[in-house]
Amino acid sequence: MEFFMPTRLITGEHCVMENRRRLAAFGSRCLIVTGGSGARRSGALADLTAALEAEGVTYEIFDRITPNPAVSLCQAGGQAAAAFRAQFVVGVGGGSPLDAAKAVAVFAANLEMTEAEFYSADWPRPPLPIVLVGTTAGTGSEVTSVAVLTDGAGRKHSIHDDRLYAALALGDARYTMTLPQDVTLSTGIDAVAHCVESAFSKKADRLSRLFAAEGVRLAVPALSAAAGADTAPDAQTRAQLYAASILGGLAINRTGTVFPHNVGYYLTERWGIPHGFACAVFLPDLLDHVAQSAPALAEDFYRAAGVSADELRQLVRACLPPMNACATEAELRAALPRWQNNGSVKNTVGAVSQEQIFTALKQLLVDRA
Amino acid sequence: MEFFMPTRLITGEHCVMENRRRLAAFGSRCLIVTGGSGARRSGALADLTAALEAEGVTYEIFDRITPNPAVSLCQAGGQAAAAFRAQFVVGVGGGSPLDAAKAVAVFAANLEMTEAEFYSADWPRPPLPIVLVGTTAGTGSEVTSVAVLTDGAGRKHSIHDDRLYAALALGDARYTMTLPQDVTLSTGIDAVAHCVESAFSKKADRLSRLFAAEGVRLAVPALSAAAGADTAPDAQTRAQLYAASILGGLAINRTGTVFPHNVGYYLTERWGIPHGFACAVFLPDLLDHVAQSAPALAEDFYRAAGVSADELRQLVRACLPPMNACATEAELRAALPRWQNNGSVKNTVGAVSQEQIFTALKQLLVDRA
Repeated sequence: MEFFMPTRLITGEHCVMENRRRLAAFGSRCLIVTGGSGARRSGALADLTAALEAEGVTYEIFDRITPNPAVSLCQAGGQAAAAFRAQFVVGVGGGSPLDAAKAVAVFAANLEMTEAEFYSADWPRPPLPIVLVGTTAGTGSEVTSVAVLTDGAGRKHSIHDDRLYAALALGDARYTMTLPQDVTLSTGIDAVAHCVESAFSKKADRLSRLFAAEGVRLAVPALSAAAGADTAPDAQTRAQLYAASILGGLAINRTGTVFPHNVGYYLTERWGIPHGFACAVFLPDLLDHVAQSAPALAEDFYRAAGVSADELRQLVRACLPPMNACATEAELRAALPRWQNNGSVKNTVGAVSQEQIFTALKQLLVDRA
Repeated sequence: MEFFMPTRLITGEHCVMENRRRLAAFGSRCLIVTGGSGARRSGALADLTAALEAEGVTYEIFDRITPNPAVSLCQAGGQAAAAFRAQFVVGVGGGSPLDAAKAVAVFAANLEMTEAEFYSADWPRPPLPIVLVGTTAGTGSEVTSVAVLTDGAGRKHSIHDDRLYAALALGDARYTMTLPQDVTLSTGIDAVAHCVESAFSKKADRLSRLFAAEGVRLAVPALSAAAGADTAPDAQTRAQLYAASILGGLAINRTGTVFPHNVGYYLTERWGIPHGFACAVFLPDLLDHVAQSAPALAEDFYRAAGVSADELRQLVRACLPPMNACATEAELRAALPRWQNNGSVKNTVGAVSQEQIFTALKQLLVDRA
């Protein structure tokens, strides 16, 4: 069993304003890193700036973060932080702004660093302190040492480093109340994918499995209800989904993800499919795989989580929109080498062959398309 | 929901030797803080010294820690650490050596500090880095910011401070294999008490309840088997109990304990009853209390933990030896003011009256004695 997660996590209604003194403890100047609209629509940005103003903390807003943010964008954010003489960085939003904020904090202290040095964690100076305020129930980035960013060649890579832990994460599920239905589903199913993938990682241990099972136990009924409803989820459902996303983060923080996430990156890079949908579309393949390669482990997990494999499959079907993507077999064969020596693929319990990945992609992009 | 536990926790067979480089990262000189026999009998001290020697770390052993250690003893340990120019402190043993090691690390950096300053967390300098190696499955001190120590007047008090977190905790359940039966039971039932009390704390939240329920789910069958057996528990049972103790630590680290622990301190101070027995003897009173004051919460907890209140009562009966202690009603009345404004009593869900505490003590020490 291994556990290391030094972030101070505080969730609950109005936690940003209630913890404004904790924010001010990091300094008197900060850069807020966020996307275009989510942080504003959710009310999170207004709460954060009110909290900072109440404590006399000066801030600048860097709101240029796009989905699947590029390392170069984070470098620009780092330059903005340095120019503003920011003493800490606050990321506000979903997974993209939160992951980007981690990288911005690194670049702010290492302005001349290259993308290669960034990915190799070869950072001369430690990042600025990082604060994260989540506005989606999916990423779990609030409690991980991971950032997933897009390189100059358009490829998504994750970087793991203990210096990427937030010092403070504030989670108010009210910010998820205004999420559009497609974002609720794509982020919610990402949280489910985190939990399920973590449970079937070779690194899973007693504690990570506990988080993963509880995350699924909370997320599956809440997300099923959200997928089938005409109206937006109520506050209790939102809180349940947010808690599940945190549990998913705690789970993958120990284990990492397994093959669906990494194969999903390909769908996102190539066809712009939203991250959560792109990963979750391969969850049924993972369930098939573990039914063969680790049936007892799988049954234990379903029992602990209080769901069946069929319920998980139904949930994926209910959440996922049609994938507007197709490819030729030749194209998929050409892509296969990226999973040849891939950490997430090797991290899956049992042995996942290249042929299994090819078949999963082919069914989705050739046969079904 | 709140979570903060920055200790790096690593458990598993041979984890001390396997993580020897992590030890050396804290410096080249350390003070080992331990009790008389447990650390030696368990093999933990031999593993630790071998690991330190393999890395060229020089150490001195301060093996004077007694059960319910006095603050003054920790001050002496601090002086030993300073005289040895220790750069870090390693606690090895059960709850007493681990808690004492935390205080030794504080005193080592603050030699002139008084007991009052220690308890008020008025520490001019931060403690030395703390490493903990547990040898019992009970305390959970490995993952808490708490130390319970005895003051100059013979009273047990807990101190909570973020600076008391270990930087590293290494848990190898093999060290618990040689525990005598009475220690297995008194420490194991302490872990159960941590989980149950945490679940019925006003501060309990989704995550702390998850830890508490899982701790009980693991501990109750393992400890029931241990209590009823003629032979010592096997390695799997020991590992299960150790995991439960860590879960109990994670639970109380968020919530604190409730009235049984604090009333138990009185039994330990006055009659020398081992800590785990002294607390657990009041668990049935807590179960009675929550059946009245929070029945839905109680049922939810029993369901999540997979045990009934009756099974918990049976376990307490099976583990506890006869209490060789008696008192007069007048003596108990005279002791009552200590629980008048007590944090642990007020932390219990529902309102716990002084009369309830008096009745629980009277039944144990007057009627039953």
